[in-house]
Amino acid sequence: MLGAIEAGGTKFVCAIADLNLNIIDKIVIDTQTPDKTLTQVIQFFSNYPIQSLGIGCFGPVDIDINSKTYGYITSTPKLPWQNFNFVQAITTHFSVPIAFNTDVNIAAYGEFRLGVARNKNSCIYLTIGTGIGGGVILNKKILASHHHPEMGHIFIRRDEQDKFVGNCPFHNDCLEGLASGPAVEKRWNIKPANIPDDHFAWDLEAFYLAQAIANYTLIFAPDMIILGGGIMHKAHLLPKVKVEFLKLLNGYFPIRSVDDYLTLPALENNSGIIGGLLLAQDLLNN
Amino acid sequence: MLGAIEAGGTKFVCAIADLNLNIIDKIVIDTQTPDKTLTQVIQFFSNYPIQSLGIGCFGPVDIDINSKTYGYITSTPKLPWQNFNFVQAITTHFSVPIAFNTDVNIAAYGEFRLGVARNKNSCIYLTIGTGIGGGVILNKKILASHHHPEMGHIFIRRDEQDKFVGNCPFHNDCLEGLASGPAVEKRWNIKPANIPDDHFAWDLEAFYLAQAIANYTLIFAPDMIILGGGIMHKAHLLPKVKVEFLKLLNGYFPIRSVDDYLTLPALENNSGIIGGLLLAQDLLNN
Repeated sequence: MLGAIEAGGTKFVCAIADLNLNIIDKIVIDTQTPDKTLTQVIQFFSNYPIQSLGIGCFGPVDIDINSKTYGYITSTPKLPWQNFNFVQAITTHFSVPIAFNTDVNIAAYGEFRLGVARNKNSCIYLTIGTGIGGGVILNKKILASHHHPEMGHIFIRRDEQDKFVGNCPFHNDCLEGLASGPAVEKRWNIKPANIPDDHFAWDLEAFYLAQAIANYTLIFAPDMIILGGGIMHKAHLLPKVKVEFLKLLNGYFPIRSVDDYLTLPALENNSGIIGGLLLAQDLLNN
Repeated sequence: MLGAIEAGGTKFVCAIADLNLNIIDKIVIDTQTPDKTLTQVIQFFSNYPIQSLGIGCFGPVDIDINSKTYGYITSTPKLPWQNFNFVQAITTHFSVPIAFNTDVNIAAYGEFRLGVARNKNSCIYLTIGTGIGGGVILNKKILASHHHPEMGHIFIRRDEQDKFVGNCPFHNDCLEGLASGPAVEKRWNIKPANIPDDHFAWDLEAFYLAQAIANYTLIFAPDMIILGGGIMHKAHLLPKVKVEFLKLLNGYFPIRSVDDYLTLPALENNSGIIGGLLLAQDLLNN
């Protein structure tokens, strides 16, 4: 059996599947302290004879297998999780092969293998929610370097009318500081879900996301970019982003079809957990 | 024997080397019309029994071997070269294997194989001159997608004091529009080489380049970034860029040593032609 953990900042999703990826059991646990949360995680997996485990974790994490701190959550602002050795906490209880990566990389992998980017060579999965993060598949593999990307923190141009100081503790008004869910909420003092569709908030959001997407496009030239996360549940937002994106590129970079290029995830909220199960499956097949 | 062409917007460099990469002959030709320039290129190579040829060309070019227009220079503002089938113009005269890529990708490859990034897994080579362009090596290979990156055209934040409209025909004040050699010259009405070291022009230039480098870092997480091109001949500029870069990241992304991370090319002006010869060598070895 295959196991997967999608470890997010607010909740952990754990799943068990058979070797053909049919999900057998699944739970959702609140993210509390490592101790409390991991106890429940371990209890869940103890019920099944797992053969391998794929983990996608909120960052920053150390995913460099040659590093001394491989498997750690590193400099997160969530203090109880800082410098927490996630992989060891699991291997103490289950001596099975483990794949450890970021939450967004496993979501990208899920969409790449079984979702909307299924026939592509490369894709970026961007999540716009509590934070903004991106996962990258390139030449059919998760992009690997000494460190995973932090593409939610890129610097973009502000709209002149936007006087909001920004919400990122490191960079104030980087992309995440200007366009994440909490940034939108603080700027307008309304929960994003309750902001009317015709509010200027969405024009601003589209402008910021489009700049980021244009930059990712110019730098990476991926085959497609997938936009997930809570903010994208606003159905009118994606069309606005497409318009702004094409306006910014101004014909310079060839985009065959913007509707094929910029899409929502096909696996909806399961991109990550399915990506984790696929990594677990890969461990057994390779 | 190996042949290489570094086809730039102002000059073509052609070189012949033995199979061990010792350069035997080399010429520099002005970039005029395809007809005039290619006649000289073909004449040069006719003197040697070349076995393969590596070409790096100014862009945009089509480097997707599965595309109908593979080997073409596509939508360049240099009208005589628009939609010019470069690879065919060469294969008509020499029936040898040809590698066709961008000028910046072959420069990145040269530095990666024999230059400053020799022991790295990935690098970005950025040229800041007449234009701004970047080449990418990832997992020891030139980044390949449907299209090469156009990382010189990313959108960055303007300095409030900078009222220059920008110099990019497509995007006005994208990075290239604000920070290329011609942009600096137009803004200050002085040739960059003649601008004194203590002029504000260089603070501005460092701020713009640092933003771009921070964004590339956050998106790609390469092992190093190499800064080439005429503008970087100003020796005091790189230290300024490093300071701005670290200030922007503000400790968020782990950079072990900024001096190792941001460097000038080791092969100086030969990164490109050596990269081209290496690609020609690869064609014979694979």
